[in-house]
Amino acid sequence: MKRGILMKKQLKELQQWLKDHQVDVAFVNAPETIGYFTGYESDPHERILALLVFPESNPFLFTPALEIDDAKNSEWNYDVFGYLDNEDPWKIIAEKVNEVTSAVTNWAVEKDSLTLNRFEALQNYFPTSQFKTDLTPMIQRLKLIKTPDEIATMIEAGKWADFAFEVGFNAIKEGIMEQEVVAEIEYQLKKKGIMQMSFDTIVLAGDNAASPHGNPGERKIKKDELVLFDLGVVYNGYTSDATRTVAFGEPSKEAKEIYDIVLTAHNAALAAVKPGITAGELDKIARDIITDAGFGPYFNHRLGHGLGSSVHEYPSLMEGNPLVIEEGMCFSIEPGIYVPGVAGVRIEDCLYVTKEGCEVFTHTPKTYTTI
Amino acid sequence: MKRGILMKKQLKELQQWLKDHQVDVAFVNAPETIGYFTGYESDPHERILALLVFPESNPFLFTPALEIDDAKNSEWNYDVFGYLDNEDPWKIIAEKVNEVTSAVTNWAVEKDSLTLNRFEALQNYFPTSQFKTDLTPMIQRLKLIKTPDEIATMIEAGKWADFAFEVGFNAIKEGIMEQEVVAEIEYQLKKKGIMQMSFDTIVLAGDNAASPHGNPGERKIKKDELVLFDLGVVYNGYTSDATRTVAFGEPSKEAKEIYDIVLTAHNAALAAVKPGITAGELDKIARDIITDAGFGPYFNHRLGHGLGSSVHEYPSLMEGNPLVIEEGMCFSIEPGIYVPGVAGVRIEDCLYVTKEGCEVFTHTPKTYTTI
Repeated sequence: MKRGILMKKQLKELQQWLKDHQVDVAFVNAPETIGYFTGYESDPHERILALLVFPESNPFLFTPALEIDDAKNSEWNYDVFGYLDNEDPWKIIAEKVNEVTSAVTNWAVEKDSLTLNRFEALQNYFPTSQFKTDLTPMIQRLKLIKTPDEIATMIEAGKWADFAFEVGFNAIKEGIMEQEVVAEIEYQLKKKGIMQMSFDTIVLAGDNAASPHGNPGERKIKKDELVLFDLGVVYNGYTSDATRTVAFGEPSKEAKEIYDIVLTAHNAALAAVKPGITAGELDKIARDIITDAGFGPYFNHRLGHGLGSSVHEYPSLMEGNPLVIEEGMCFSIEPGIYVPGVAGVRIEDCLYVTKEGCEVFTHTPKTYTTI
Repeated sequence: MKRGILMKKQLKELQQWLKDHQVDVAFVNAPETIGYFTGYESDPHERILALLVFPESNPFLFTPALEIDDAKNSEWNYDVFGYLDNEDPWKIIAEKVNEVTSAVTNWAVEKDSLTLNRFEALQNYFPTSQFKTDLTPMIQRLKLIKTPDEIATMIEAGKWADFAFEVGFNAIKEGIMEQEVVAEIEYQLKKKGIMQMSFDTIVLAGDNAASPHGNPGERKIKKDELVLFDLGVVYNGYTSDATRTVAFGEPSKEAKEIYDIVLTAHNAALAAVKPGITAGELDKIARDIITDAGFGPYFNHRLGHGLGSSVHEYPSLMEGNPLVIEEGMCFSIEPGIYVPGVAGVRIEDCLYVTKEGCEVFTHTPKTYTTI
């Protein structure tokens, strides 16, 4: 119910924006954006899934034929049209659009997800239309400030990430393969109905963790090394994302030193989060600590990313980004140091910005933990 | 090693095609296409991953900074360049392209995956260039006919799908939730190092299976109903995909009748596969059987889809498609009947076309099986 009210509010904001920008119709086609506005979550693969929104008239959803019933049974309360695999979806979309509004000239499209061939297909049916207006910044802006209901959902998603850490830490033992730990984490989640991870769960041991986006494999966990867990779940359409690096036995002194630097950087950035600071300033706070400790070149990614209905969205916490942090924004703080052949450490929490600071979504301890 | 030789052959074909079409540079950006040509499999999320290919000069891979080492350690033997999160990737790409070839006028891009904003970013650095040539059909064509090595890999991927069915069938018992069966299947696969499914595993019981793309949930499996499994794995970059519908106890007479019709349609289409027949004719063979039995409207999707390095690619086996089947093509045959509130049945095998017929990748029995 709450989701339904929220969606209506978001749709209204989009419609108002279309009016303000003299747009006749918005073509929304990223599945996560459609989920955001309609509550209907679906991966259409190579088929066409689209949401058509008009400034004054009712919007409609357009789906592959085999999804029409699911879409109608979802929270979406407006029309649903569809097409069979042997039909031309663009022709049907064009007909439906022309039924709603006879004089379409200005389209708004999601430039960050609309592919060239789909753009050309649309253009083909509306050869005299303009497709200059980009929906992407508007949608990014709309998604940037989360409502209390969205934050409540993300808090639940965060709890499941904490549960996943617990399962993962319990699974660690000498000789277990990284992939077996991943299997255990996702097994326990799926049994409880958490069917989708935000991304492929990462469990990396020792020097394997020195690749910030490495893939878990047959590498066995050995005594006295660090183990990095990066994971998150999708809960009611919203994501969580967190990273912990824990000690199995007694890793080298250097590994512990790296850990301490990353934790100091993480805590410093976290403590600085509040409305008014910029995304770039937050990045700098963490980066300066790591650079001063001599590990600057080994922190080769930005400090963090926004998340919400997708696991990577705005804001981007990177060097020089002048974006001012506001209450209701949700993002990660995830400094890391990756020394090839030695160790990789990343500590990540996602948070929501409050009036005076922030609250994190995940509560698994970040102090140096020995398993 | 074999993969390496294959990739070189494929790259050469692409380069020859660029020469034939007077293209100066190809911008490849779909992660699965990049994996196909380079052996480097990665999901860059919102970051930029691209492969630049030239008709005469050596190609290069362009990755986010945090992936450079992984890319260099992969099977890819040419240059790898990258960018930090606070750098403009398009500027660096433009510089590197201009170093290779000073007079770029004709670009070829993947129109089915290049987004409008990335297209505009590229165009911004090459304002006088033409971006008319679409790589998509060329790549689709290249991927359409599989080499013996690719087929050998897909046979392995098929064996894992058979293993997954075995796990799933063994897990079925009265009262178990669909999501628990999914958890069990993926757990056993991940423990053995199969870390990625071709798509979210589908286990649907009874009337739940009447939605061809339904989501497994808390629905408990009851005695005397059909259970539908649709699953596949990614193995060494190649996919499998298969569906079995099995009886738990004694489902209704109507469910069994539907099963028999789907199996007859499946077998008839399978028996007809050979070089020379068209994709549309294969669809018609299965569709006519289902339509004659009175269930035409309940078979609301095409007969099948190609698969290979991605789980949905060409050919599309749908009504009226004149594409002529050739030796080496790989695709699914997956008729289904979905009667809302009653039952859903789909039977799917993927196959490769031989000189005189075809061979399937999955061997779990398709005769009406009672668990």
